[in-house]
Amino acid sequence: MFKHTKKLQYHAKPTQPDPLLAKKMQEILGGQYGEMSVMLQYLFQGWNTRGNERYKDMIMDTGTEEIGHVEMIATMITELLDDATVDEQEQAYNSDPTIAAIMGGMNPQHALVTGLGANPKDSNGIPWSGNYIIGSGNLLADMRANINAESQGRLQVARLYQMTEDAGVHDMLKFLLARDTMHQLQWLHAAQEIQKTTGQLVPHNVPTEWEITDVNTILYNFSHGEESKDLFEGQFTPDGRQFKYEKNPKASGEAPHLKKAPKNMFGVEELNN
Amino acid sequence: MFKHTKKLQYHAKPTQPDPLLAKKMQEILGGQYGEMSVMLQYLFQGWNTRGNERYKDMIMDTGTEEIGHVEMIATMITELLDDATVDEQEQAYNSDPTIAAIMGGMNPQHALVTGLGANPKDSNGIPWSGNYIIGSGNLLADMRANINAESQGRLQVARLYQMTEDAGVHDMLKFLLARDTMHQLQWLHAAQEIQKTTGQLVPHNVPTEWEITDVNTILYNFSHGEESKDLFEGQFTPDGRQFKYEKNPKASGEAPHLKKAPKNMFGVEELNN
Amino acid sequence: MFKHTKKLQYHAKPTQPDPLLAKKMQEILGGQYGEMSVMLQYLFQGWNTRGNERYKDMIMDTGTEEIGHVEMIATMITELLDDATVDEQEQAYNSDPTIAAIMGGMNPQHALVTGLGANPKDSNGIPWSGNYIIGSGNLLADMRANINAESQGRLQVARLYQMTEDAGVHDMLKFLLARDTMHQLQWLHAAQEIQKTTGQLVPHNVPTEWEITDVNTILYNFSHGEESKDLFEGQFTPDGRQFKYEKNPKASGEAPHLKKAPKNMFGVEELNN
Amino acid sequence: MFKHTKKLQYHAKPTQPDPLLAKKMQEILGGQYGEMSVMLQYLFQGWNTRGNERYKDMIMDTGTEEIGHVEMIATMITELLDDATVDEQEQAYNSDPTIAAIMGGMNPQHALVTGLGANPKDSNGIPWSGNYIIGSGNLLADMRANINAESQGRLQVARLYQMTEDAGVHDMLKFLLARDTMHQLQWLHAAQEIQKTTGQLVPHNVPTEWEITDVNTILYNFSHGEESKDLFEGQFTPDGRQFKYEKNPKASGEAPHLKKAPKNMFGVEELNN
Amino acid sequence: MFKHTKKLQYHAKPTQPDPLLAKKMQEILGGQYGEMSVMLQYLFQGWNTRGNERYKDMIMDTGTEEIGHVEMIATMITELLDDATVDEQEQAYNSDPTIAAIMGGMNPQHALVTGLGANPKDSNGIPWSGNYIIGSGNLLADMRANINAESQGRLQVARLYQMTEDAGVHDMLKFLLARDTMHQLQWLHAAQEIQKTTGQLVPHNVPTEWEITDVNTILYNFSHGEESKDLFEGQFTPDGRQFKYEKNPKASGEAPHLKKAPKNMFGVEELNN
Amino acid sequence: MFKHTKKLQYHAKPTQPDPLLAKKMQEILGGQYGEMSVMLQYLFQGWNTRGNERYKDMIMDTGTEEIGHVEMIATMITELLDDATVDEQEQAYNSDPTIAAIMGGMNPQHALVTGLGANPKDSNGIPWSGNYIIGSGNLLADMRANINAESQGRLQVARLYQMTEDAGVHDMLKFLLARDTMHQLQWLHAAQEIQKTTGQLVPHNVPTEWEITDVNTILYNFSHGEESKDLFEGQFTPDGRQFKYEKNPKASGEAPHLKKAPKNMFGVEELNN
Repeated sequence: MFKHTKKLQYHAKPTQPDPLLAKKMQEILGGQYGEMSVMLQYLFQGWNTRGNERYKDMIMDTGTEEIGHVEMIATMITELLDDATVDEQEQAYNSDPTIAAIMGGMNPQHALVTGLGANPKDSNGIPWSGNYIIGSGNLLADMRANINAESQGRLQVARLYQMTEDAGVHDMLKFLLARDTMHQLQWLHAAQEIQKTTGQLVPHNVPTEWEITDVNTILYNFSHGEESKDLFEGQFTPDGRQFKYEKNPKASGEAPHLKKAPKNMFGVEELNN
Repeated sequence: MFKHTKKLQYHAKPTQPDPLLAKKMQEILGGQYGEMSVMLQYLFQGWNTRGNERYKDMIMDTGTEEIGHVEMIATMITELLDDATVDEQEQAYNSDPTIAAIMGGMNPQHALVTGLGANPKDSNGIPWSGNYIIGSGNLLADMRANINAESQGRLQVARLYQMTEDAGVHDMLKFLLARDTMHQLQWLHAAQEIQKTTGQLVPHNVPTEWEITDVNTILYNFSHGEESKDLFEGQFTPDGRQFKYEKNPKASGEAPHLKKAPKNMFGVEELNN
Repeated sequence: MFKHTKKLQYHAKPTQPDPLLAKKMQEILGGQYGEMSVMLQYLFQGWNTRGNERYKDMIMDTGTEEIGHVEMIATMITELLDDATVDEQEQAYNSDPTIAAIMGGMNPQHALVTGLGANPKDSNGIPWSGNYIIGSGNLLADMRANINAESQGRLQVARLYQMTEDAGVHDMLKFLLARDTMHQLQWLHAAQEIQKTTGQLVPHNVPTEWEITDVNTILYNFSHGEESKDLFEGQFTPDGRQFKYEKNPKASGEAPHLKKAPKNMFGVEELNN
Repeated sequence: MFKHTKKLQYHAKPTQPDPLLAKKMQEILGGQYGEMSVMLQYLFQGWNTRGNERYKDMIMDTGTEEIGHVEMIATMITELLDDATVDEQEQAYNSDPTIAAIMGGMNPQHALVTGLGANPKDSNGIPWSGNYIIGSGNLLADMRANINAESQGRLQVARLYQMTEDAGVHDMLKFLLARDTMHQLQWLHAAQEIQKTTGQLVPHNVPTEWEITDVNTILYNFSHGEESKDLFEGQFTPDGRQFKYEKNPKASGEAPHLKKAPKNMFGVEELNN
Repeated sequence: MFKHTKKLQYHAKPTQPDPLLAKKMQEILGGQYGEMSVMLQYLFQGWNTRGNERYKDMIMDTGTEEIGHVEMIATMITELLDDATVDEQEQAYNSDPTIAAIMGGMNPQHALVTGLGANPKDSNGIPWSGNYIIGSGNLLADMRANINAESQGRLQVARLYQMTEDAGVHDMLKFLLARDTMHQLQWLHAAQEIQKTTGQLVPHNVPTEWEITDVNTILYNFSHGEESKDLFEGQFTPDGRQFKYEKNPKASGEAPHLKKAPKNMFGVEELNN
Repeated sequence: MFKHTKKLQYHAKPTQPDPLLAKKMQEILGGQYGEMSVMLQYLFQGWNTRGNERYKDMIMDTGTEEIGHVEMIATMITELLDDATVDEQEQAYNSDPTIAAIMGGMNPQHALVTGLGANPKDSNGIPWSGNYIIGSGNLLADMRANINAESQGRLQVARLYQMTEDAGVHDMLKFLLARDTMHQLQWLHAAQEIQKTTGQLVPHNVPTEWEITDVNTILYNFSHGEESKDLFEGQFTPDGRQFKYEKNPKASGEAPHLKKAPKNMFGVEELNN
């Protein structure tokens, strides 16, 4: 069960409206690696975690924090849209080309659909999808999904930071960058803790006889040119074996000859021409 | 530029048809973490990599290998569908309830749309999406995306392994498990190499003054219960500082009071009732 | 069965081309609440309605009208694109910044894909989705879906009206606003008629013992601050009972402790660290 | 900012596992009208509401409650999946046809992807979409979206109730039905309050001269047969005028004759044959 | 403008309900190549056609017919769902395994969401998408899209025919197969007529100097093995030249060396390790 | 199995960066008819083809070539983005309105998400979808899908050609136009070869008694106006019969009267008002 306080976790107030920045900021709200994704990824992971209550608690701690981040960014976007009135937009086109450029780049749904509000979509207006997130039932796999998500997310926030000089926006992004730092460190730490027990391979408990172990340390050179060779040959795998390099990988399977389709599939029979 | 040899990288031949397994196997072909995802993720990452030619070559090596994995699984699915003729399906319902159950679970598009062939969709028939993959322009972020993808992928293959006792299917999956092992080790190794230069944080070169450093090592206890505390308090971050634990996190932002919408947004004015 | 007359239901002819308006107008054609949505929502509701032939007839009346509205808007968009030739677009960038701004905001698919024609997408180019609509098999639920759709739709048309001063576009929008008025009134009227029989709750015939009636009139104060209290406390519900207000809602369920996953799910076992 | 208590708002514990019910229950979690939709619809509406703080507070009260409903259902689904082990599934096919039927209908991603956990998808595995929800910037339009959502949602819960006889599942659904009752009443009440100021039309403040008022009370008979006539003719509109019925609606627009496409669109010129 | 008669274009009445067939039949209603696709493809093509009024009229003739086909199939699906009551479904599982198998394969949304009605989705429940169709602004390209659509559509109907022995369903499918025959012949005929003017290449009017004509008749042998050689070598192209066959295609471009990313993209600099 | 050479099939190097063109060029990379679509359509068709090895080889030849086309266009897009640094973008807005217009039209994900790289999306940022392609199990149907795809694709490339005057971009597009010419000719040729055996109808082997042959050569005049009549009346079908024209098509089916819904669907019973 959740409770809400109206105070934001941190300030989210731009110095002035900027509808074009509002459009771009949607990326870190409703994009593939936006805050909605981490919020829902962590919540679903938490709800699905079976046992390991310390980890489950940690995931719920941060999942809950992220709802508040979604709130901050949605609020910021709404404020960035404050003066993007539609008739001003019309007038701007007829007068000031710079304003016209800026307004022309505005997300039309911010005026037409949401009436100057945020929506759960990315910077191109693509709706958030339930296929952006993963809760896998394997704690280490999930930590890696989270390390990746916070890495992509912090990268995007850093890029967004430079797209504005607004001190208020910068202030919020400074907070988000710091929290993304923490969350990235947190999942890295948790992964390292788990790896003390499991080792580095996910899943760690596949029976050996399920693998053709001959081929599980070879880098195959499928792209001509051997620039990648030295990165691996003679190097050690994270589980202490040695990488091999196969300069000219061979196909060991046969060319497939498929069974003819049955008649009721209505295909084209074997052609003579 | 690419060339194709008809021989498969490894055997992909089931002992007998199994349309229900064909449906499930679509997950590792066209699902969120199926082979299409790693193939296209690596290819796009390779094409987008600027400089660091050794890494670029490695990514293209493996991206190219993955096209061959998509080929193997697509071939296997097509063979698993060999006898799933539609009128047999009809008859089965009227005779043998076990067969009826199996055929009833078949993906109808495998008969109606593809005529007993694979398609770029997951085990529920959801089409593959370009939003499953990432090439971020940051090499470490990309390696983490790849570590995650191979972790999720290998986990799914291990689960799928148990859903059949077909020796031919097992043979192919043994090869895939081994290659997933290698690829997971490979991206882990590459990430470790990069981290020697960059440290563990992505991106590693955000100016310090862009972060509110006070809050970038704190685990906030947003989910009541302190099970997660010991995982962090007194522990060291991957970059050598110390985690803090905030038992009762406070909101430091204000409650937002948004500007009224302009008239031309056609909202509801302030209500007295 | 349907028949078509080439005459439009109403005029749809702009005074002059405007490719940027064409892009925006896609929202009321192929957006979440565009005319395609009401057209297909009503048609599917009509086709699915079992009994209640007067209502079914009414739904089909309006569903059929909406095909004609889709036609009008598609025609208007095509005409707004009349002079958006691609090489003029190129030249404009090099000469006139205001034109550059306008053309730069044009939907690139209007030139590249449709060759100056409309498509079934919204103002950001998101394709129309079958998940925008509902035919629920409950007539009152459907009327409410329709009231909502016409409310959102009329709101968007009113906002769009201000984004142009083109008299021809205004003329068509005046007709659409009027018909949206009628359709909104129509679904409101139908809902009121149905409610005479069913009351206001959907569905109206759930057995009482299927509900924990103690909690079905309480507003829980999950967001700190009691601004909402007076709106409900002491007020009457639409079905004549009295609303209650719970200042500090309690969790009455237990904290879930999930069963460990079975081995073959390949999770991470209980960790000691 | 949000906080989480591990206790659920209400009990969510089935008497026994049922993977087929888990699949169906995904509809009220991640479907078009599932709890994720109302949760995110209310939260975004709340964050976007400008002024009218009492209404905003109410929306946030309920949006926050809904996060807890998502949690309850996700937990229930995870528990319904408790024994859906994949090798048991394999064995079942070879022994008991009824179990085979049930397991064959299981969502394969519940085993392969989530490892016996819930995901943000509907009962067919379609991922939740950001285009399911609306926050329009018009309070009455939003209330109507909410009335619709709770009507569809409660209808689905009532239907789901009958698909099981599990007392634990019934217990949770009884709570959800009751809360859906309250939420439906709540949005109906709020809409009525707003309508005291605005009247019934959304938006209420479109200038009269923007409408062709002649046609805004007519039901056009576009579907042959006049069953719908008596529902309207002589009846009063919600805003106190009288509905009209047009038996044989006429097209008042012209047949469009579109301008030829410019050469650089590479179309087919006027054909003589 | 459109009008509707309640009589269906042809009979659509099954002999008895069959919810599993209802699920499969959704493919030819709301699938990639279902009747919704041809209906909306033709309507949008018609609305976008500039000039060539005879062709435009023909396209509108058939687009309008297809609305009636959508109606027939939606009606049939609704009737196939007649007795799929949810508690019978529950009971069936506990008694008759064959019925259990059939009902277990039912689309859960047909009970939960639509209340025994059709919806705009395919046989796996994937919602219809605006990206299924094309109106390109080139009449010959459009005819080819239509030839393809009717070929795929007729193929699917033929396959569906065998999945049932219901005489009523067969009756409707016989009509649809016949109309698909006509429509396929119709678009083939129209394409041939257009090709008398344009030749076979789309678009026919690209300036010669925009092509590297040396390579526009060569089949490159990118897949090892020369089985395809005889199909082309020595054969004539549809525009009267001769195909060539290149046994060992060479890359004529350079290996790309991309410019380093600017600093503010926050990538990883050139690594020494 | 596939191998990669780093050399591109042809040159892909613009004279200078152009981020707006990069955005538009995404259409021919990741759009509905972009190179990803033909690449994956041909590969899946090849993998699914049963028998007819010459055709299968040809399909794999071209499917493999298309991977190289995706590579060329992805490379070109990445190079077109070379100087699109985000702080320059910010400065441009404040100085030069023409640059502002151009940069304002840039795809924000090209900066924020991919760090100046291509992605598998169209010119509006819509992710590529597995539902863009078809491998039907019928060789003639597939050839027609391919003829259509190459017709749409070549049309889009021709339109794109005019949107730039960059000699390097033109050079690549000249190569692509030529290859699209070849591929269009190739599929036309293959279709003609197959038709020598099958005739023109897909599928060619539906039993005659499955069709109501009376109606399979009639053009129904569903759109008032008889412009289309002369195109058909007295003309011959591709299979040598004669088209008929029905001026006033009649509905031969009945008006459907659906069975009432069962109680447990919770609909609204027959209303008296």
